[in-house]
Amino acid sequence: MTAPAISQQRGPRSSDENEAEHAIEEDHALLTGQPTGKPSPPPSALARSKWREIGLFVWAVVASAAVIVLAVVYQHSGVGRTIPHDPPHAGGKRNLIFMVSDGMGPSSLSLTRSWKQITDHAPYDRTLFLDNYLIGQSRTRSSNSLVTDSAAGATAFSCGSKSYNGAISILPDFEPCASVMEAAKRAGYTTGLVVTTRITDATPAVFAAHARSRAMEDSIALQMVGETHPLGRVVDLMMGGGRCHFLPNTTEGSCRHDGRNVVDVARNLGWSYLDNKREFNRLGKNVDLPLMALFADEDLPYEIDRRHEAAVYPSLEEMTKTALHALSTATKHKEQGFFIMIEGSRIDHAGHANDPAAQVHEVQAYDRAMRAVIDFIEADQKATGTPTLMISTSDHETGGLAVAKQLTPVYPKYLWLPSVLANASHSAHYASYKYHSQMSTRQPHGHDPDVPMLKDYLLALAREDLGIWDCADAELDQLIHHPAHATYTFADMISRRAQLGWSTHGHSAADVNIYASDREVAANLTGNRENTDIGVFLRRYLGVEAEVEAIARELREHAKVGAEGGDAWLGSVPVAGERLDGQDHLDHYHGNRRQRCELCGGGGGMFQ
Amino acid sequence: MTAPAISQQRGPRSSDENEAEHAIEEDHALLTGQPTGKPSPPPSALARSKWREIGLFVWAVVASAAVIVLAVVYQHSGVGRTIPHDPPHAGGKRNLIFMVSDGMGPSSLSLTRSWKQITDHAPYDRTLFLDNYLIGQSRTRSSNSLVTDSAAGATAFSCGSKSYNGAISILPDFEPCASVMEAAKRAGYTTGLVVTTRITDATPAVFAAHARSRAMEDSIALQMVGETHPLGRVVDLMMGGGRCHFLPNTTEGSCRHDGRNVVDVARNLGWSYLDNKREFNRLGKNVDLPLMALFADEDLPYEIDRRHEAAVYPSLEEMTKTALHALSTATKHKEQGFFIMIEGSRIDHAGHANDPAAQVHEVQAYDRAMRAVIDFIEADQKATGTPTLMISTSDHETGGLAVAKQLTPVYPKYLWLPSVLANASHSAHYASYKYHSQMSTRQPHGHDPDVPMLKDYLLALAREDLGIWDCADAELDQLIHHPAHATYTFADMISRRAQLGWSTHGHSAADVNIYASDREVAANLTGNRENTDIGVFLRRYLGVEAEVEAIARELREHAKVGAEGGDAWLGSVPVAGERLDGQDHLDHYHGNRRQRCELCGGGGGMFQ
Repeated sequence: MTAPAISQQRGPRSSDENEAEHAIEEDHALLTGQPTGKPSPPPSALARSKWREIGLFVWAVVASAAVIVLAVVYQHSGVGRTIPHDPPHAGGKRNLIFMVSDGMGPSSLSLTRSWKQITDHAPYDRTLFLDNYLIGQSRTRSSNSLVTDSAAGATAFSCGSKSYNGAISILPDFEPCASVMEAAKRAGYTTGLVVTTRITDATPAVFAAHARSRAMEDSIALQMVGETHPLGRVVDLMMGGGRCHFLPNTTEGSCRHDGRNVVDVARNLGWSYLDNKREFNRLGKNVDLPLMALFADEDLPYEIDRRHEAAVYPSLEEMTKTALHALSTATKHKEQGFFIMIEGSRIDHAGHANDPAAQVHEVQAYDRAMRAVIDFIEADQKATGTPTLMISTSDHETGGLAVAKQLTPVYPKYLWLPSVLANASHSAHYASYKYHSQMSTRQPHGHDPDVPMLKDYLLALAREDLGIWDCADAELDQLIHHPAHATYTFADMISRRAQLGWSTHGHSAADVNIYASDREVAANLTGNRENTDIGVFLRRYLGVEAEVEAIARELREHAKVGAEGGDAWLGSVPVAGERLDGQDHLDHYHGNRRQRCELCGGGGGMFQ
Repeated sequence: MTAPAISQQRGPRSSDENEAEHAIEEDHALLTGQPTGKPSPPPSALARSKWREIGLFVWAVVASAAVIVLAVVYQHSGVGRTIPHDPPHAGGKRNLIFMVSDGMGPSSLSLTRSWKQITDHAPYDRTLFLDNYLIGQSRTRSSNSLVTDSAAGATAFSCGSKSYNGAISILPDFEPCASVMEAAKRAGYTTGLVVTTRITDATPAVFAAHARSRAMEDSIALQMVGETHPLGRVVDLMMGGGRCHFLPNTTEGSCRHDGRNVVDVARNLGWSYLDNKREFNRLGKNVDLPLMALFADEDLPYEIDRRHEAAVYPSLEEMTKTALHALSTATKHKEQGFFIMIEGSRIDHAGHANDPAAQVHEVQAYDRAMRAVIDFIEADQKATGTPTLMISTSDHETGGLAVAKQLTPVYPKYLWLPSVLANASHSAHYASYKYHSQMSTRQPHGHDPDVPMLKDYLLALAREDLGIWDCADAELDQLIHHPAHATYTFADMISRRAQLGWSTHGHSAADVNIYASDREVAANLTGNRENTDIGVFLRRYLGVEAEVEAIARELREHAKVGAEGGDAWLGSVPVAGERLDGQDHLDHYHGNRRQRCELCGGGGGMFQ
């Protein structure tokens, strides 16, 4: 090829060499900031050639630089990985905050949003904070039912596998699977669990324990502090309720079946321990890990009740802030970041109770916790440069909530009434507890109730705690003659007045929402996903797939009958038809304390 | 600058000129496909210079080409517009397919997915087709209620504005707003409406008519054919039911209040008209627009019933395919593409009836229609090069469906039973219609029912049409003593056996899903959105915002009292408290024919 031929190839610019040179010169001038009007160089062949070379070189450098810039932008913007096969996980320090809104279905969002608009006098387009982060939906069924329980739902998150209702990081073959938190711990991450229910309940348990039945909470407590877990301690920070499973059955407030003092066991294993808000407040910036903070015998109170006792119990938001600060500080100079699971546990309990007033406060508390998480991510990223991802989802819907209810055979008007929820100052469970206390004081067992006295009492109770001024005689009769169902009756009184429907006190099979702080990084979770996809994502994001594989082998080996320890720590293999979902009781007044707590949402230390 | 300096600047490659030249030569060889082993040119200064020039030029060209390629890819991939402020709309032919799944809430999807897995013997992760296209959720409330009706819901889509329940493209001030279809028509688009309900029902009506109350279907029919619409005809293709509003009240099958023959009016305005599947099948590839095809007096049958009469009624999928082909052909040589709204209208009706067996077939029919749409988009894009976008959403949830139901005070097991739905061969409405026909034959009005005979009849009916073999005496008594509620009773018999809950025969406030064929193009609709955002998106995608503004002015001018025509065409301004949502009746046997149809889902020509 010759120079003229090359010039011709340049086509659109010019076939005239002088013009081409001038154009190149102009490009160069634009690049260097020199004026373009300077005199041309002497027209000798060599000089022309030199200038041509310089021009060509500049053109090439500029174009190459543009290639690099565009390529970097392209890469950074995530083009070509809108549906990537793997989230980023190779190398690089990172943190993962996994939030679980237990029992929160799509209807809970519309419910809470409208209630909040009414109470805040906000316009119709004022959304919840979490609405900004919606990226997809999750399918929730378990391996043995179209309707999952929290144990199977959480095992899908911890192990990335479907399992049976009741399974605590156990597979359908009753062998243990490796949880993402066990793998993260081995890989050097610092780990945490923050909940508002018992820390031994299904959702937190799956991350740091294995059990063939979720009811084995005594065993789960010992595993979680590291005493009986084959891998030792896998969690560095635990906050929530469920103290009763850590205290010996010789102690008031215990619900253990044995005399082991798991708090002492934990202390001997190096845990710091606290059990009240005062010490929690004093933690400040100095948190020694491992730390266990258990604020209630069973569940923490519903948010609608807790806010009246904020000096006694921390909110989910407060625990979240303290935990994130502690984990960030602890990992400041470490090679690996942290992994924490934060659960709004009692959205589910409000669903079980069919109590919409309690539920909107639970969802709002979760929403506030998410805001604290996002605020943390922004501040921490600036301070430390460590990227943090927040993923949030539910395990299932609870209650079959409908934001509408037909009260009579007459065709229903299209409306519901959030002001009814705004009028309630306490949960139906709280009102029920007060009612039962009143009865036990005034009406010794076996005596006929003093109906007129009780009616007056109930009228005042409904007004004061539930904001209901128009109790019907039938409602009062139901409360007086079926006091054991008072929580449900009070909740129904609110639901009917607000025109809200519930189909069950159990769970439903509705798809649930997925949220993420970064839609691009979480691209594998956009759209409609299986709940196990979330579990797979968590381990890939943390880059701990190799650890998962290794730990899975070790746990199965450990569980082999005949091997040291055998599989006794997993509990017995359930018999066919055995009910394991932990919810097979309605009449909680005939059960023991733990049953009462599980069914109606407890109320924890506040009431007991 | 000198040549050596230039070479130095190239840094990583080589500071040796010969090596540099060789490297350039290799690049060139890679570009042109020439072998790299050819002998070097003579090492004279001029030759060296020439080769340097060639090399630099090739480098520059390659780099520039890379810039162009990357820039195009960058642009095409939507980087920087993951949350763009405007979808692409300036210039360029395009088509828009807007699908509406009336009354389909999040629970309908889980319901239908599991039912289909059971009937297809498919694994748990076999999803519906539409699950692949989920991008977000829509908030649905109207301007005057937290629970919208279809009229206000559809007006949010057509006009991008909130309005009151019952409004047909009318704003809260009772003045008309410009619909996206009116604007599209003016901009040169070819337009279509395909539904399975009456073509004059709220969702289709808002696109081509204006009325202060959705009940004005006689007027809406005249507007839709172009007779009384201030802009003339704005729709080129209409398919669905609702023939009764086009026939004079002197004719069998009419439900008009006047004697106007709107079919004749339409023919005079140039419409082709057909009213049966035979003629529909004959359309083939030759569709003359404008075309009106009305296959039933009222609604088309539920899909669960229609599939037994496929020779009489087209499916939503069949209508969709024919309509898309017709619109693509009609716009082949036009500057503008087409805009069509396709509605799975009767998902809503199955929700009103609380009939889960009818609903899963309706959702599946919608799913098949979406598959046909996506198949069309792929094929048409290849054939014509015209980009087509599909957006799909619901106006609201209907029925307060929960995929779980607690049947007794005993705590519910976590399950539901899709096999019950699989056993039903017809809708509850169909069974009810048969029962009423039987009664009118065997039991003259005013006579006591022959209870033993009716029980035998009902047992056989439940077995044959609903797959129910274990009718309870209480259910038979309810059917015999309250025959007017037979549709609801039959639906309840199925729901209870399948353990599915409903909270209302009306609508609920649940957020509903948004789907799109292209997540990037529809980036403005990802996440949680207001239903009006969808309306704004439609007009922007079509690039008809200027037309919307102009038409809005014209319509308001036209509606001014005193101006030609005044606002009579819009109907009277509703009085305070007037019920406009078209659903204020339960006892459909005391109403006229139209009321029966609206409430229980009709059944259209099949049964009448």
